[in-house]
Amino acid sequence: MSRVFVASVGLVPIGDQWHKSISDLMVEAALKALDKCPWAKPDRIIVGNMFSGASSSQEHLGALLASCLGLKGVPAFKVEAACGSGGVAVHEGYVAVKAGLADVALVVGVEKMKDILTPQATKALAMAEHADYTQVVGTTFISLNALIMRYYMEKYGVTREEMAAFPIIAHKNAVTAPHAQFKRAITLQDVLNSPMISDPIRLLDSSPAGDGAAAVLLVSERYASKENLVEIIASEVANNYFLVVEREDPLFLEATYIALKRALDKTGLKITDIDFFEIHDAFTITAALSLETMGLSERGKAPRDALNGKFELNGEFPISTFGGLKARGHPVGATGVYQVAEAYLQLTDQAGPNQVKGAKYGLTHNFGALDITTAVHILKRVG
Amino acid sequence: MSRVFVASVGLVPIGDQWHKSISDLMVEAALKALDKCPWAKPDRIIVGNMFSGASSSQEHLGALLASCLGLKGVPAFKVEAACGSGGVAVHEGYVAVKAGLADVALVVGVEKMKDILTPQATKALAMAEHADYTQVVGTTFISLNALIMRYYMEKYGVTREEMAAFPIIAHKNAVTAPHAQFKRAITLQDVLNSPMISDPIRLLDSSPAGDGAAAVLLVSERYASKENLVEIIASEVANNYFLVVEREDPLFLEATYIALKRALDKTGLKITDIDFFEIHDAFTITAALSLETMGLSERGKAPRDALNGKFELNGEFPISTFGGLKARGHPVGATGVYQVAEAYLQLTDQAGPNQVKGAKYGLTHNFGALDITTAVHILKRVG
Repeated sequence: MSRVFVASVGLVPIGDQWHKSISDLMVEAALKALDKCPWAKPDRIIVGNMFSGASSSQEHLGALLASCLGLKGVPAFKVEAACGSGGVAVHEGYVAVKAGLADVALVVGVEKMKDILTPQATKALAMAEHADYTQVVGTTFISLNALIMRYYMEKYGVTREEMAAFPIIAHKNAVTAPHAQFKRAITLQDVLNSPMISDPIRLLDSSPAGDGAAAVLLVSERYASKENLVEIIASEVANNYFLVVEREDPLFLEATYIALKRALDKTGLKITDIDFFEIHDAFTITAALSLETMGLSERGKAPRDALNGKFELNGEFPISTFGGLKARGHPVGATGVYQVAEAYLQLTDQAGPNQVKGAKYGLTHNFGALDITTAVHILKRVG
Repeated sequence: MSRVFVASVGLVPIGDQWHKSISDLMVEAALKALDKCPWAKPDRIIVGNMFSGASSSQEHLGALLASCLGLKGVPAFKVEAACGSGGVAVHEGYVAVKAGLADVALVVGVEKMKDILTPQATKALAMAEHADYTQVVGTTFISLNALIMRYYMEKYGVTREEMAAFPIIAHKNAVTAPHAQFKRAITLQDVLNSPMISDPIRLLDSSPAGDGAAAVLLVSERYASKENLVEIIASEVANNYFLVVEREDPLFLEATYIALKRALDKTGLKITDIDFFEIHDAFTITAALSLETMGLSERGKAPRDALNGKFELNGEFPISTFGGLKARGHPVGATGVYQVAEAYLQLTDQAGPNQVKGAKYGLTHNFGALDITTAVHILKRVG
């Protein structure tokens, strides 16, 4: 069993990329990562993506990327787990390197969301939910989260103003993030005045649609002497029951809890040993539930903790250090790879103004639908 | 590194399954496999599928299956590599068990092709080819194979009648295959009189559209003392250049060659040590090219060898022992799993009238598009 390191990353700025096809985006991210490691020739390629078929009439992304890079004879394929596709793709790269079946695994997450109209994108995203039980009653992914948010606010007596703390933090961090979709700060009034999407979720409670691709190059311990490595010391994936109504407590993210517990158990770390957290803040409510499930806030208290500065870049538990899903952007199948790449930047002191000073451990947390499939990674500074 | 065994399989008969959703199909195959091993609780689930989004508005199949089976906390996701999705899914299950990260990996391949109309299915299948270069000029997957078939027949002076040997063998073997889509023999005249689809490919040169699901339960050496095990002694995946025009020799399947060579090298076997071959006979031409690339026939000679009985069930190198893609059926993302399941049946003497007597080694060969992504498995009888 080999140790597994991130050797380099490549990030395509997220936004409207009308002029680039899905293969263009994959190749751009891959080359950015590969150019930094001329010694590394990928012997495995894994692409995380959710709906390239619906957006681009294109499947077979793994071999497509390999071929575009001029590679032949490489195991290459796509991994899909809805919005958790990127995190699971990193996990599968990790597994192959750990098993000694790959020395250099190139993992790319990609999604094109802006080539299709909003109703089509909404329909594509709904494929993360059960066609026979959820889609069929007209529930969209956002209306599902709206029900959860309303329940949360009522159960814990949390105000609309308090909830807004999360998008405000995310946008603040994105201002200086080169690859972020929205490099601008927002105020409480901006959130409260933004259009209602699905009551109580407003526009600024929601992660945006965007085109993007991110790459991470994973290498085995054969390359442990190379510079600028970050070690992946845990990679865990877990599922939860598909339908929220099947869950004992819809406000507790059980897949997150299980994956996190396994990751902490295997590394011997406590959650408080982690220096920053790239969480799955697809909506304001998912940020709150994630932090509470992880034990970083008491139940019902995450928004107030956020208001009090606990999750700021210079706070006790920095989150979404480059803007998170809310402001860095959320090209769904790519997001989990962006998160691991961002953790790499933090742990090699390449985060610029977004640097979490002296960070030694970083955690990424990426899920599909509402915590149906969750991937948790813990990364560690080397040296 | 653990050894990897197939402990049981589950096969859904292929055909028109209008009354079953994609989750119904997955669950049926999975339960058939799990029921035979009450001692086995999956700790990893991998689903091979190509276009559930296009056919069923459903992604997130891994967690969907896990949830339908009442499982929580399991790593579960979908793997996609066009028509090679099933073979790659088995490979990923193999990797996880080999790495010691799973003791019981449930691998299910599934595809629903009959809920959508033929033009939609043709469009969905074309997603295996490059959207920017192949789809855009109106090439369908079948017209691409037609060009290759014409080139092959002209180059080697092979007649239309000789080519027909392959579908005739496939249909003959399917007659007694319980899960086959077409349990009927066909004659040379049937092939020659069948409708022209894309000259020179006729209807009976083409694998059919069908709904199906297959499951294989992979277990680690922790369960090596269980009965009815078959060992997977090689699992290799390789890619070839995406566009056929990029290839030096369009009649040589380089991904197949590379994956096969690695599998043989790792096991120390010669190709002639293998007792039967589940090949990717999606079209008559792909059967011929596969056998020639594997070295079982000289270039341009496979159809004549077929006519001479070399590939019959009782011949020197039996192929498509339950009817292959042509007659057992080809629910695309499921096919690679059907093949491994069939090899399991052969190597545990459960193949009934289709049994290859005394078979010790079996090979499965599954590719996406025309050998863009190829998965090769070698399975070995235990005891």
